[in-house]
Amino acid sequence: MSRLKVQCFAVSLDGFSAGPDQSLENPLGVRGPELMEWFFATNVWRTMHGLGEGEKGVDNRMAEKGFENIGAWILGRNMFGPIRGEWPDDAWKGWWGDEPPYHVPVFVLTHHARAPLAMKGGTTFHFVTDGFESALARAKAAAGSRDVRLGGGVATIREYLKAQLVDEMHLAVRPVLLGAGENLMSGLDLRALGYEVVESIAGERATHMIVRKRA
Amino acid sequence: MSRLKVQCFAVSLDGFSAGPDQSLENPLGVRGPELMEWFFATNVWRTMHGLGEGEKGVDNRMAEKGFENIGAWILGRNMFGPIRGEWPDDAWKGWWGDEPPYHVPVFVLTHHARAPLAMKGGTTFHFVTDGFESALARAKAAAGSRDVRLGGGVATIREYLKAQLVDEMHLAVRPVLLGAGENLMSGLDLRALGYEVVESIAGERATHMIVRKRA
Repeated sequence: MSRLKVQCFAVSLDGFSAGPDQSLENPLGVRGPELMEWFFATNVWRTMHGLGEGEKGVDNRMAEKGFENIGAWILGRNMFGPIRGEWPDDAWKGWWGDEPPYHVPVFVLTHHARAPLAMKGGTTFHFVTDGFESALARAKAAAGSRDVRLGGGVATIREYLKAQLVDEMHLAVRPVLLGAGENLMSGLDLRALGYEVVESIAGERATHMIVRKRA
Repeated sequence: MSRLKVQCFAVSLDGFSAGPDQSLENPLGVRGPELMEWFFATNVWRTMHGLGEGEKGVDNRMAEKGFENIGAWILGRNMFGPIRGEWPDDAWKGWWGDEPPYHVPVFVLTHHARAPLAMKGGTTFHFVTDGFESALARAKAAAGSRDVRLGGGVATIREYLKAQLVDEMHLAVRPVLLGAGENLMSGLDLRALGYEVVESIAGERATHMIVRKRA
């Protein structure tokens, strides 16, 4: 059965999954890249960006697993770009250039309608204006028997967790203190919402914890 | 030089270092023992409690390090016992029986004066009513060249962190979700306070992260 999964989502020791002050220059917020350092070293990341071979250890295996059996993605508006409010035109096509790394339909949550945007390599961005549950229904229909990956950001993941719609969440716990930014779990009683940690895997630059909704 | 150190202090994936509703029956709060499961299996814990040999892996080594070179302890009132307000009498002598595991002077923060309490094995509890800075000064004087260990609880550690008085903090990050309880880092900008993570060590049942104040 198709599941909704958060994959490879980094969280700092002090609970932040994005730095403060996201912008065109700082898509992950100020100091946000410190969260991603475990990923930047992997073979998955480096080959994806034409940087040659990367490390092939535990972190890399977890990154690979994040892309397996994914039939559709869901992204919050801020994950798609820095533009807020109405789309001024169709010029912004995401952070990823002509050929984004998704290769499947991607459903972008927004309050502002926009025609679907077909990119090279099989990625089509669909802009969903009627809510996160509708986005999930459309993503699951598109994914068929495969899973739907919820890419973020923090506010979007929190919305799906509160609605108990996330089936599994792989968090990469990073040994860094961000001090400020967007906190993933603050104020959420994940235990009462039905979640538990089922596995902890030590990687080279992160501890990978698998959170799952109890059956 | 004598340092103020937090050692072996557990924190859940969702940021809690004690469960809710601490009481005589639940000294660590409801579900608090899930935080301590990494410690209960160690040789340090088991021999301390006459339970026979325990595991001697990474978690045990981290537990051993927590007791090395400690010349005094500081504890918040709630770590010493469940009694709030005035001491009704001298009957309560801590959670640990006649011979507590400290074997050095222990400074207990309280608003209510009480005479020092000498126990078997070298532990003497001193009750400090003139504030956390005074407790630190007295503990450092007692410790000499050795370190002072700050045992907790959460509110006490947060107070010393806010004042930038903690030199080093060893956190045992546990793969559990408590959902509620006392959050160790929420609302504290540890980075702005001068702290950084200097090491991450994978143990059997916890990921040990060492936080240090930048020089």
